Amino acid sequence: MKESACSLMISRSLRKFTDETKNSYKMNETILPHTDLQNIDETMLSSLEAFSQYRNVSAEKKAEFLEAIAIEIESLGDEVINIASRETNLPEGRLTGERGRTCMQLRLFADMVKEGSWVEASVDTADAGRKPLPKADIRKMLIPLGPVVVFGSSNFPFAFSTAGGDTASALATGCSVVVKAHPGHSETSKLVAGAIRKAIEKCNMPTGVFQHIDASGFGAESFEIGKQLVQHPATAAVAFTGSLSGGKALYGYAHERQVPIPVFAEMGSINPVVFLPETLKKNPDSLAKMYAGSITLGMGQFCTNPGLMIAIESESLTAFQQKLVTEISAFQSAKMLHDGIQQNYTEKLRKALEQKGVDLITAAKEQSNGPDSDASIASVNADTFLKNPLLREEIFGPFSLIVKCQNEEELKQVWLSLPGQLTTCVMGTDEDFLQHKELINSAFQLAGRIIFNQAPTGVEVCASMIHGGPYPATTDSRFTSVGTTAAKRWVRPLCFQNCPEFLLPAELKNANPKKIWRIVNEKMYNGDVA
Amino acid sequence: MKESACSLMISRSLRKFTDETKNSYKMNETILPHTDLQNIDETMLSSLEAFSQYRNVSAEKKAEFLEAIAIEIESLGDEVINIASRETNLPEGRLTGERGRTCMQLRLFADMVKEGSWVEASVDTADAGRKPLPKADIRKMLIPLGPVVVFGSSNFPFAFSTAGGDTASALATGCSVVVKAHPGHSETSKLVAGAIRKAIEKCNMPTGVFQHIDASGFGAESFEIGKQLVQHPATAAVAFTGSLSGGKALYGYAHERQVPIPVFAEMGSINPVVFLPETLKKNPDSLAKMYAGSITLGMGQFCTNPGLMIAIESESLTAFQQKLVTEISAFQSAKMLHDGIQQNYTEKLRKALEQKGVDLITAAKEQSNGPDSDASIASVNADTFLKNPLLREEIFGPFSLIVKCQNEEELKQVWLSLPGQLTTCVMGTDEDFLQHKELINSAFQLAGRIIFNQAPTGVEVCASMIHGGPYPATTDSRFTSVGTTAAKRWVRPLCFQNCPEFLLPAELKNANPKKIWRIVNEKMYNGDVA
Repeated sequence: MKESACSLMISRSLRKFTDETKNSYKMNETILPHTDLQNIDETMLSSLEAFSQYRNVSAEKKAEFLEAIAIEIESLGDEVINIASRETNLPEGRLTGERGRTCMQLRLFADMVKEGSWVEASVDTADAGRKPLPKADIRKMLIPLGPVVVFGSSNFPFAFSTAGGDTASALATGCSVVVKAHPGHSETSKLVAGAIRKAIEKCNMPTGVFQHIDASGFGAESFEIGKQLVQHPATAAVAFTGSLSGGKALYGYAHERQVPIPVFAEMGSINPVVFLPETLKKNPDSLAKMYAGSITLGMGQFCTNPGLMIAIESESLTAFQQKLVTEISAFQSAKMLHDGIQQNYTEKLRKALEQKGVDLITAAKEQSNGPDSDASIASVNADTFLKNPLLREEIFGPFSLIVKCQNEEELKQVWLSLPGQLTTCVMGTDEDFLQHKELINSAFQLAGRIIFNQAPTGVEVCASMIHGGPYPATTDSRFTSVGTTAAKRWVRPLCFQNCPEFLLPAELKNANPKKIWRIVNEKMYNGDVA
Repeated sequence: MKESACSLMISRSLRKFTDETKNSYKMNETILPHTDLQNIDETMLSSLEAFSQYRNVSAEKKAEFLEAIAIEIESLGDEVINIASRETNLPEGRLTGERGRTCMQLRLFADMVKEGSWVEASVDTADAGRKPLPKADIRKMLIPLGPVVVFGSSNFPFAFSTAGGDTASALATGCSVVVKAHPGHSETSKLVAGAIRKAIEKCNMPTGVFQHIDASGFGAESFEIGKQLVQHPATAAVAFTGSLSGGKALYGYAHERQVPIPVFAEMGSINPVVFLPETLKKNPDSLAKMYAGSITLGMGQFCTNPGLMIAIESESLTAFQQKLVTEISAFQSAKMLHDGIQQNYTEKLRKALEQKGVDLITAAKEQSNGPDSDASIASVNADTFLKNPLLREEIFGPFSLIVKCQNEEELKQVWLSLPGQLTTCVMGTDEDFLQHKELINSAFQLAGRIIFNQAPTGVEVCASMIHGGPYPATTDSRFTSVGTTAAKRWVRPLCFQNCPEFLLPAELKNANPKKIWRIVNEKMYNGDVA
């Protein structure tokens, strides 16, 4: 389908959909044969048609729908956990927890929608007597963009896949969603998609509001499907969590469009940790324990895995390193998410260890699943690190590189030389922090989240969470993919000038029975407009 | 300068700046010879250095600085008005008003910064007892992105140029600014830049916080300077107001960067106006008067100029059209902003009038400045309009095209076939609105601002204003370039986890003496955190 200006396309697409497609396309069977690119056009047009209805659904009904999805996912019981565990090699305990988080996210967005202030409503009332010109009544609020294409992640089969944070946040705003399942957990994704379809039926939502593309192939085929989805004229925005190469490809596809669209790609990072001198002296053992746990958590398969540790050379650093090696050596390694990730880890690790000046300080263990999947720590001096950009690349898995600096100046150079990050951690005593206040302030520019005396793994789902950061951590540092603020990716403001009260959306009328927070004549206020 | 990852670049650039550049570069003389591309590197590096200081300046000091700029611009007196009038052919009254608006904008942003809630602070307090895992203390607020490059517009020599809304909003957030003056009013821009420099001195701000590039050439040279500015690694974001071709070029340059950056380009639109049947029957004369005024206001040189009028054929439409022709014929045309714009208007108008089925219904007048600059109205039937995409293109100047529809269905088709718009207007009685509620709801997707029973020209500067819209009206429909919300283009959220109170920015500390509005544990609250 040739792309043209967006609205023209919408009107044409809807005509096309209504006239030709509706009868022949089984809208209840949205799982598509993965090689059938033709169906992507039908899927996106049906998503657009559903959007035109769903965007008008009341906040209460949308919230009910999100809650119904959570209930249906819970109703999938142990079966989906067993299948997910088989597909991803992740332990059942972790997966049960992740499903819990997924349902919690859906309910959090339901609460956000019910409460209503998220639309950033604002009202400037008219002033007919203003000189030299009268002032018009002007109001604004956020409205949904349109169909959002979500690419499921490999490492969160529930929380960042089919009914994960991207889907929940998009549905909350009134966007329709098309999910491309991650091929690493296709069966899990199908079950979750089935749960969403049940919720659609129970809540009487437009059938096409959620659609699922089951593309079980990796590689070129997967990229081609991604391209078709991103470049379809009905697609209004894209969510992706995965590798830098995957995210960059989708971002590039979007830029080839005639009408550009927002792409929020979370592409991971190495999450540098700075250990300041006094805390390293006082707490080498507890720090080593905390970081051994964080590096190996979930076989290191988290976007927030601490892949780089920066400190000034000292006896304390040696003590920390020794303890870290002991802790890591006791770690029982497991199979990674899938073979591709395993191979990638092995290759990237091997390449890093081949670099001049990089020393492996942990060794393969006999009882492990083979040396390839072992957790590994290496070290390098700052000067070598600064000269070798390869060492700044993420190695997805249980690996971390210690950068040893001669002095504070080198530590600063190493830290601030890094590209954009999701997180950066500073470990220090209060005395450390006071002495390095300016350095820490400089690091504000580096990441989306700065963490003090905790490990970066573990991402709280709340209003204050930012899971984002400067490129290449994401494609747009102004947004987050975790927490309620994630909804802001799928909306734009619409301004109403001199609009009759009866035509205004509920959120902008004078009466404000839900008491949502609005900016009324430049002041935050949750009462009625007089 | 070769581009690399952003932070690496920042650190390197600062080193380079400190070591090599600082002494040789006269930072007080930021007006650059317009052909000297080498200086762009120095300008951007000095902007980056200034940013590293300016972002830490207190809200109160930033507000003082914005107010000082307003005072200095006012102190330029009549001289700058005279020069601007000579450079742009705009009448002095209009320019005096526009300067007033410019200073008002600066003060509005100063007030926003002083009040403080704009940073969208939020606080989620710790819960050590939470099961299964304790909850960390998490807080977030908006921080500035870095140096913003602003391209001055041709049609607003004050309000959307050197010290206009883009500059004011960027400085308000803590970003440094580099302005490329529009060559159409280079002298005016220099005077305003001088006023900003005086404010920098008086307020003791970092010298490089504002810099001015006086590129008096048009065409290829101007594009090359634009490219260098957008692609410089120190550039963090771009603001542009102008033509579709100019905006698309800058957007393309940004995408060629290794590290992508946000580009907010406002590229104008044709601002379709729909006249519903009953109001046309009741008020043909007053509607014609309102729209004759809006079409010709400022020689039609507004981004919100109503370039398209859509209505169902009827006797009332004929009456409206006749009255419109009478009104337009009485209009005394003036010289346009500059020769390029004049030529563009003539050529685009000629091309539109050559299209099959397009009828000119006003004629050149003897007392005019020549037929080329005359205000013109043409008409076309809906069927012809729908088939000819050229008729959807903006003709910058005092021109509007009436699209005559056979029935409501055709009117809907024409309206919804349009690409993204800054504004769309609906003229109707309450009865009209009630009968066309669904149609109007569909049009929500079309524009950034929907206006009822008023003309689109005239953009109020307030919190509820959205001067933006779906592509190609802008490159990102999620933002606005007018109103206080315009500041959101230049910031990103930064999250602080488990941060000691003494390291937190003022906006995130427990104590909240300024009583800024924050989301505290998911609720809007302006008190202290317990």
